[in-house]
Amino acid sequence: MPQITVEYSRNLEARVDVVALVHAIHEAARSTGLFEQGYGIRTRAAPRDVYVIADTDPANAFVAVVVRIAEGRTASQKEKLADRVFGALRTQTADALASTRMALSVEIQDIAELGARNHNTLRPRPPDA
Amino acid sequence: MPQITVEYSRNLEARVDVVALVHAIHEAARSTGLFEQGYGIRTRAAPRDVYVIADTDPANAFVAVVVRIAEGRTASQKEKLADRVFGALRTQTADALASTRMALSVEIQDIAELGARNHNTLRPRPPDA
Amino acid sequence: MPQITVEYSRNLEARVDVVALVHAIHEAARSTGLFEQGYGIRTRAAPRDVYVIADTDPANAFVAVVVRIAEGRTASQKEKLADRVFGALRTQTADALASTRMALSVEIQDIAELGARNHNTLRPRPPDA
Repeated sequence: MPQITVEYSRNLEARVDVVALVHAIHEAARSTGLFEQGYGIRTRAAPRDVYVIADTDPANAFVAVVVRIAEGRTASQKEKLADRVFGALRTQTADALASTRMALSVEIQDIAELGARNHNTLRPRPPDA
Repeated sequence: MPQITVEYSRNLEARVDVVALVHAIHEAARSTGLFEQGYGIRTRAAPRDVYVIADTDPANAFVAVVVRIAEGRTASQKEKLADRVFGALRTQTADALASTRMALSVEIQDIAELGARNHNTLRPRPPDA
Repeated sequence: MPQITVEYSRNLEARVDVVALVHAIHEAARSTGLFEQGYGIRTRAAPRDVYVIADTDPANAFVAVVVRIAEGRTASQKEKLADRVFGALRTQTADALASTRMALSVEIQDIAELGARNHNTLRPRPPDA
């Protein structure tokens, strides 16, 4: 049941298609095959309007992606997931990177099983629906 | 000093009363008796306007509640807290669930004591105030 | 590559200069000398419009600062960082504290190395730029 947050400085919206970025990261996570056809993946953007980055130049930008998954995955599964997501992030921001000083990051966090509760009706619809 | 975040896809606002949801989750945490009359509990909503969920149908929805508490609680305390909060979440979203494919989640996270700093003036007012 | 989030209840905006607060916290983290001249620090505000705090009085307020850093720092490095950031938070909210019941918090979280990916072009510009 991965929870993916794509947090970014609002100044990027002039140079990055955020909807496309969120879709690409979602598909990158789904492409790993780690998450049962992707029915548990929830990917969202979190824009930030007020930020101070590095040397405080207002033109500086960031995208910080956090991928949170149930604990128990192997190191190689996490590395694969990180690589795919980071690849999508790099591709979607490639043009902006040419003209913008910015920091891109991806990280993988564990969701503790103790205290976790889930209810999910995101199952596929039947074929004739 | 619990920190509770109720993150959700904005499309739920037509079917879920978010203010009532945040209140219900706050009261659920308070009802556990774990937090000194509730004076340290801070519960807030974090709506998301851009999201991609599961099979990417824009009608899909999510609510992800994260409850962050000082480390050191027992497993049974955490389970009780999770049960109460999840119960409130289920109750408040019951009607919406009938017509919406969505994912509900609750998780409990520890706040590390190392580096934690707090200042709190949320004490009760005197009776004659 | 610190990631700093300054989350707060929107009712504080009448009494706290949020831009100044974010700058002060950014500079406080930079002043520790722990982060290579500060080129990796990203500090942002996350305002919350819907919240329920302590006894549910709508006048209650909070600021919750989370500082996320690469794992491996010593306890004393984390304590120094927490002290500096909390000092900036206290200073910037001192006037508001006189008239507002609120909770201030700082915490330090580790970013796991496993799965972490970074690309950073926030380097200083050359002197003649």
